Amino acid sequence: RIDGSRLWATLMETAAFGGTPAGGINRLTLSPEDGQVRDWFRAACETAGLEVGVDALGTQYALRRGRDMSRPPVACGSHLDTQPTGGKFDGILGVLAGLEVMRSLDDAGIETEAPLLLVNWTNEEGSRFAPAMMASAAYAGEFTTEEILAKRDAAGVSVAEALDAIGCRGPEPVGARAIGAFVELHIEQGPILEAEGKTIGVVEGGQGIAWFDGAVTGFESHAGTTPMPRRRDALLGLAELALAVERIAQGHAPSAVATMGEAVIGAPSRNVVPGQIRFTLDMRDPKSETLDAMETALREAAAEIGARRNLALQIERIWRKEPVPFDTGLVAAVDAAAEALGHSRRRIVSGAGHDACNLAGRVPTTMIFVPCKDGVSHNESESATPADCAAGADVLLHTLLALANA
Amino acid sequence: RIDGSRLWATLMETAAFGGTPAGGINRLTLSPEDGQVRDWFRAACETAGLEVGVDALGTQYALRRGRDMSRPPVACGSHLDTQPTGGKFDGILGVLAGLEVMRSLDDAGIETEAPLLLVNWTNEEGSRFAPAMMASAAYAGEFTTEEILAKRDAAGVSVAEALDAIGCRGPEPVGARAIGAFVELHIEQGPILEAEGKTIGVVEGGQGIAWFDGAVTGFESHAGTTPMPRRRDALLGLAELALAVERIAQGHAPSAVATMGEAVIGAPSRNVVPGQIRFTLDMRDPKSETLDAMETALREAAAEIGARRNLALQIERIWRKEPVPFDTGLVAAVDAAAEALGHSRRRIVSGAGHDACNLAGRVPTTMIFVPCKDGVSHNESESATPADCAAGADVLLHTLLALANA
Ligand SMILES: NC(=O)NCCC(=O)O
Ligand SMILES: NC(=O)NCCC(=O)O
Repeated sequence: RIDGSRLWATLMETAAFGGTPAGGINRLTLSPEDGQVRDWFRAACETAGLEVGVDALGTQYALRRGRDMSRPPVACGSHLDTQPTGGKFDGILGVLAGLEVMRSLDDAGIETEAPLLLVNWTNEEGSRFAPAMMASAAYAGEFTTEEILAKRDAAGVSVAEALDAIGCRGPEPVGARAIGAFVELHIEQGPILEAEGKTIGVVEGGQGIAWFDGAVTGFESHAGTTPMPRRRDALLGLAELALAVERIAQGHAPSAVATMGEAVIGAPSRNVVPGQIRFTLDMRDPKSETLDAMETALREAAAEIGARRNLALQIERIWRKEPVPFDTGLVAAVDAAAEALGHSRRRIVSGAGHDACNLAGRVPTTMIFVPCKDGVSHNESESATPADCAAGADVLLHTLLALANA
Repeated sequence: RIDGSRLWATLMETAAFGGTPAGGINRLTLSPEDGQVRDWFRAACETAGLEVGVDALGTQYALRRGRDMSRPPVACGSHLDTQPTGGKFDGILGVLAGLEVMRSLDDAGIETEAPLLLVNWTNEEGSRFAPAMMASAAYAGEFTTEEILAKRDAAGVSVAEALDAIGCRGPEPVGARAIGAFVELHIEQGPILEAEGKTIGVVEGGQGIAWFDGAVTGFESHAGTTPMPRRRDALLGLAELALAVERIAQGHAPSAVATMGEAVIGAPSRNVVPGQIRFTLDMRDPKSETLDAMETALREAAAEIGARRNLALQIERIWRKEPVPFDTGLVAAVDAAAEALGHSRRRIVSGAGHDACNLAGRVPTTMIFVPCKDGVSHNESESATPADCAAGADVLLHTLLALANA
């Protein structure tokens, strides 16, 4: 078994990098705070005797040697970046539980057949740079390294520039390092496990995701002198679209979700009718056909609103991640480990995207979920119990041992 | 008659301070660009032999001496600040036409009985600091100087700090300088004069204005894992409120207008359900009772949306300007000057707020409007013809002469 209090202590220790007054973490990918936690992580891994390498997208790999170094390593890990209103567990638990597994194996003097690998993937969150999970997508061959290096944040800074700004661009070619299997521990980020009183989620796959960038263009005019019928108010077009997006998701209840997360008025002023707004959309469902249907309905709604209000509504799909089934053998291995440890459990599908969803396209992959309070995530109040974190880390340990010694 | 081509040349010359690629001006009050045009204005006034003073809120006063210096000066002027998407005429025409009047009187060797005064009021637009027309409001006694100095922009900079940053805080106590009458030339900023083919608007008053600051508070949560019914999405609450505000104004057609000009999501991210939004509202009508009714309806709509969506909607009225009737004697003087010059004209009520609306609370005041293209203002494409600008300046000249020599 892992040491639950040591795991909890590292969770609390690293929460200081980007820690917020409300008890959350604001540690956007490749920010100075992300640089701090990366430095901490490298030092902690080296102290634990792991060999740390970094690839051209900044992803950190920490290797624990096995008896048979001809076998590809069995890997775990997640991410250390957060949302602007992030909590202390999303992604971080998966990385620090992996570190705790390595420390516990050392304490017990256990050597595995296959080597073990602990990974901290760059930009899982997708808040600063879109898409989410971009380094693991490049690892899996969904993008080239050059494509990812060229992505820019809202301030115009490229991934390449951001990597160099914190000195985190490594020498390893992305995807060059073989991985035999990948297991990611994560908080559920949803309400199901808690509601059912289950400790472990045995994750069967991830739902599909579509991301869009959009713009509404009207005409700036004087708030005091422009009669209502003459207005081309971009904010009112956006308002109707946001409500249409909600109705579209509700039309595919209970599985579908859709969110307008960002909306920025160009040159805003209190006494100017808004003329220009940029926005982003996120649509998800476990079924590919439902994603298709939602996108069609979105485009119809935008066309109707634009025509009626004399506005230009542009919508561009910038990313689509198909629903991902995980490896049935690995799912069974997680289930067996949870059973052996005596933890209550249920099968579950992930609502969030994870690096594991990308890895699944290249190597046998699965995930382990533990509950989080009220199902809340991407919020500073995100919370999980020490006992659940330890239970998840134990299941991770036993799953990795089973795979590495098989 | 004034020199129309000299007036046009000064309009085009000063348009370079904060000039935008699209042909407009972005010259927010007390910005470096506003500092530049203020320096230009002081130098131009001094070259024209005027005595320039500056008050504690940065308002510039340029005096042309009269035969009887015991009489309070007859004043004109407007403002040189603009909206972020401002044009080349809003406010600027009134100041530069005043300068042209002074230059033309010099050319013709005319001395007036009462002295003349040309004023450039600080922060008419209200875009950077609320409320609009704040220096003229302080002049008229609606606010103390200290209240205005303490107002802050969105970046937290106070008026006092902004004045000092461009060295524009003057020694004169605000309101200390007597004014005998005030006449402001301005573009109409609406479509009426153009539609009716009239050159001069004889302005009888300004409509009422109410400004509000508001916030919608929900709860940040994960865009992929939070089921639609569990969401407390602040952006959807804002969307419903924006559409309710539109309906409220439409319910008092055709006179009322209402605008949500600003809306800023706190900590926005594509895959986070928005939890916090700040916004501003602008509501106007020529009738005080209609302003009351709109505010009541606004608060009812906010309460209903908040209760239904489990959101906190806060709305604070930060400014209210009652409808203002102008001085009937001065209105008649403008009418007479326009008639004597042979310009087509009509009576009109101003949809925009103007410094004149504040001055009217302390001294006899009126305004002169000239048409602008398509009624468009607060837009970089704002446009007026050289002939209409010259006609307005001629009416200003003759109105000032009539008042100063009466
Ligand atoms: N796990 C997680 O929050 N990932 C961020 C990407 C997403 O929006 O699903
Ligand atoms: N004239 C003008 O645009 N004033 C700005 C204040 C307002 O919004 O009416």
